[in-house]
Amino acid sequence: MRAVELIMKKRDGGVLSPEEIDFLVQGFSRDEIPDYQFAALLMAIVLKGMVPAETARLTRAMIDSGESWDLSGIPGPLVDKHSTGGVGDKISLILAPLAAACGLRVPMMSGRSLGHTGGTLDKLESIPGYRTDLSLEKFKRGLREVGYAMTGQSETVVPADRRMYALRDVTGTVESIPLITASIMSKKFAEGAHSLVFDVKSGAGAFMKSREEARMLSRSLVATGAGLGRPVVALITDMDRPLGRKIGNFLEVEETIDCLQGRGPADEMDLTFRLAGWMLTLGGLCPDPHTGETRAREKLADGSAWKAFLRNVAFQGGDVETMLHPEKGPHARIIRPLGAHSSGYIGRIDAYKVAIATVILGAGRSRQGDKVLPSVGITLLKEQGDAVTVGEELCLVHGEDETKVAAALRSLEGAFETSDVRRIPGPRVLEEITQA
Amino acid sequence: MRAVELIMKKRDGGVLSPEEIDFLVQGFSRDEIPDYQFAALLMAIVLKGMVPAETARLTRAMIDSGESWDLSGIPGPLVDKHSTGGVGDKISLILAPLAAACGLRVPMMSGRSLGHTGGTLDKLESIPGYRTDLSLEKFKRGLREVGYAMTGQSETVVPADRRMYALRDVTGTVESIPLITASIMSKKFAEGAHSLVFDVKSGAGAFMKSREEARMLSRSLVATGAGLGRPVVALITDMDRPLGRKIGNFLEVEETIDCLQGRGPADEMDLTFRLAGWMLTLGGLCPDPHTGETRAREKLADGSAWKAFLRNVAFQGGDVETMLHPEKGPHARIIRPLGAHSSGYIGRIDAYKVAIATVILGAGRSRQGDKVLPSVGITLLKEQGDAVTVGEELCLVHGEDETKVAAALRSLEGAFETSDVRRIPGPRVLEEITQA
Repeated sequence: MRAVELIMKKRDGGVLSPEEIDFLVQGFSRDEIPDYQFAALLMAIVLKGMVPAETARLTRAMIDSGESWDLSGIPGPLVDKHSTGGVGDKISLILAPLAAACGLRVPMMSGRSLGHTGGTLDKLESIPGYRTDLSLEKFKRGLREVGYAMTGQSETVVPADRRMYALRDVTGTVESIPLITASIMSKKFAEGAHSLVFDVKSGAGAFMKSREEARMLSRSLVATGAGLGRPVVALITDMDRPLGRKIGNFLEVEETIDCLQGRGPADEMDLTFRLAGWMLTLGGLCPDPHTGETRAREKLADGSAWKAFLRNVAFQGGDVETMLHPEKGPHARIIRPLGAHSSGYIGRIDAYKVAIATVILGAGRSRQGDKVLPSVGITLLKEQGDAVTVGEELCLVHGEDETKVAAALRSLEGAFETSDVRRIPGPRVLEEITQA
Repeated sequence: MRAVELIMKKRDGGVLSPEEIDFLVQGFSRDEIPDYQFAALLMAIVLKGMVPAETARLTRAMIDSGESWDLSGIPGPLVDKHSTGGVGDKISLILAPLAAACGLRVPMMSGRSLGHTGGTLDKLESIPGYRTDLSLEKFKRGLREVGYAMTGQSETVVPADRRMYALRDVTGTVESIPLITASIMSKKFAEGAHSLVFDVKSGAGAFMKSREEARMLSRSLVATGAGLGRPVVALITDMDRPLGRKIGNFLEVEETIDCLQGRGPADEMDLTFRLAGWMLTLGGLCPDPHTGETRAREKLADGSAWKAFLRNVAFQGGDVETMLHPEKGPHARIIRPLGAHSSGYIGRIDAYKVAIATVILGAGRSRQGDKVLPSVGITLLKEQGDAVTVGEELCLVHGEDETKVAAALRSLEGAFETSDVRRIPGPRVLEEITQA
């Protein structure tokens, strides 16, 4: 087998065989196929696509490039959730303890903020003392003792993904449904999950700006799961407006606490319950998502989810006292309101513009390796459909630096629309894509 | 400017600006843009194409990557011919002295055999003593004193093409009309030609198998010439059957001598005159190709072309005595005939199958760096439309090694079709593509 012939096959729209895909991924991982050949292949994949069987095999070959985490000793169904990234998306922090409280085991491997989207690891690390660099042994102990554990991507799990992503990043080959699918799925299944619920964000604050793109990715994720023999469901959810009321690292932890104590915003809780309902269904603990949702609502109401959260914080070295009294956590030195320019009803709140303001404040990263601040961010005081009068406060900007606060306020000016007509927000869950 | 953004622009079907193309070619030439980025760009160009203005600028940027040969001191119009490569295609050897005899100056930079096609340099070097590694000074002196000179590609002319070709070869990005166009045109114009006639081969023995491909390349060459402000014409010619009667290095020199002495095969001479007519027209020595063709026929008939050829052989160190008595040149030890399997009329003679047999004999290269034998090859004794009876000799195989001769004979079995119906061969020149 010669790499150049396989590149030409894909260039001409051919379907690569399982053996050919293995040869390419193994060759690249072992430095036998040089970067320039793999880059040409990646571009051919971007422009010619892959059929579901190719994507599934690519995922499998990437998993096989490294070690998979063996969680076979863990009792209970191993189910994870993955979000494609949004603004104010703290669902993982709420959902993991909730699912664990319902009897699932949630092995959650998360990422960091990059570009305009936040990162679960950065949010968790805003809790004083909280560690996300767990060893496999500690991770498994967390799953056994607490029911869930939160960690970053290990160096030894799916090394092919790390190398491929670094190459895609500099060769204009990031935007490809099969490559995105294989990257996500390989990490999730290598970390030991047996089934997966995807939260595919769609809209201004998402990577997939259009519903059609989100649908294509969702279908690809679900089909690839089927190709690998794993139960997978994808929910397409609205990320045109921010999720919840708080955006920023510790601000989102605060909102997580509110949610787990039953005081969360309705749309955020509804989405959390929908995802939990599906996790319980895929994990086999409930017959259908509706029953699963009911179970999840009970486990939140009776305080079990909140208790699981506190156990996890303690287990991962975080300061439980701060969780019980979040006013003791990291808070920004400067808090400035943004006033409404005109009276009327709040229309669209642009998630992307809000996200850019939080990045300016230092909550996110423009570049890998940048430091993030735990305290900064934005608290939304109004949401779509609320009536406002001129000068009324729309949101609060939390910052550590006057110049950046001023810049964030300027950047937020265009984020809020006001209108004479009142439009209430649509539902968060737009579509459910399930295996046939 | 960032390379990754330009790759993405081309990936998404955008048109690169002149500055962007210069940035990419210069960056690659100076090792500032790594191979893997350029490979991704090349694949995007293969799959998304380039508009004529982009191809012209790419050609210009490639020319500017090295030194151009300054032939400004040479009197007379500088016109060259380029063939895309065929089987038995010795036209350059005949045409260059003919065009020079008509008053043109022909700065001819040629290539070597690769794959199934022959190379002008290999053919010339089968003449004892003939050197093709001319310095610029010697090349210019040849143009002044003889009217034409034959050389290989210099290391300093269009270095970007050499690097790009090496990368294209291993990344499945050879097959692209704009990339092929820029590669050919940059070399031809950097060598100092002012106008160009292309012989774009089409058919089994050509790189462009279909007429449509040949037409696309021809149009691209002509349009790119226009974009560079240079007169360019492309003739699409039939390469489904071999050109002339002899295929092999010194065998083709022998046929060249026959042609220059007025004993050449009709189709080969007709094509030579057509190309010469266009060269004289583009060079401004004749008002139209028809007049040019008439002038060329005169200069062949009166022996001027043959004299120019002998002067060139002497000038480039070749043994003139061998030209006057070609029986003294390199001849193969073994000569074996191939007999007809059935009686009837010769149908198609497959140029590709004939070419493969000559490569087996050692006349061509399967790999760069392979040595070629001057003496070996094939002499066709019959052509399409000739009547044959069983056992009658179709061709002679000239070889130095019994095993290879046997293999070549086996490989030739399928090259000759016989039929009950007599079909005479169609014309060599299929189409002329000219600037508007």
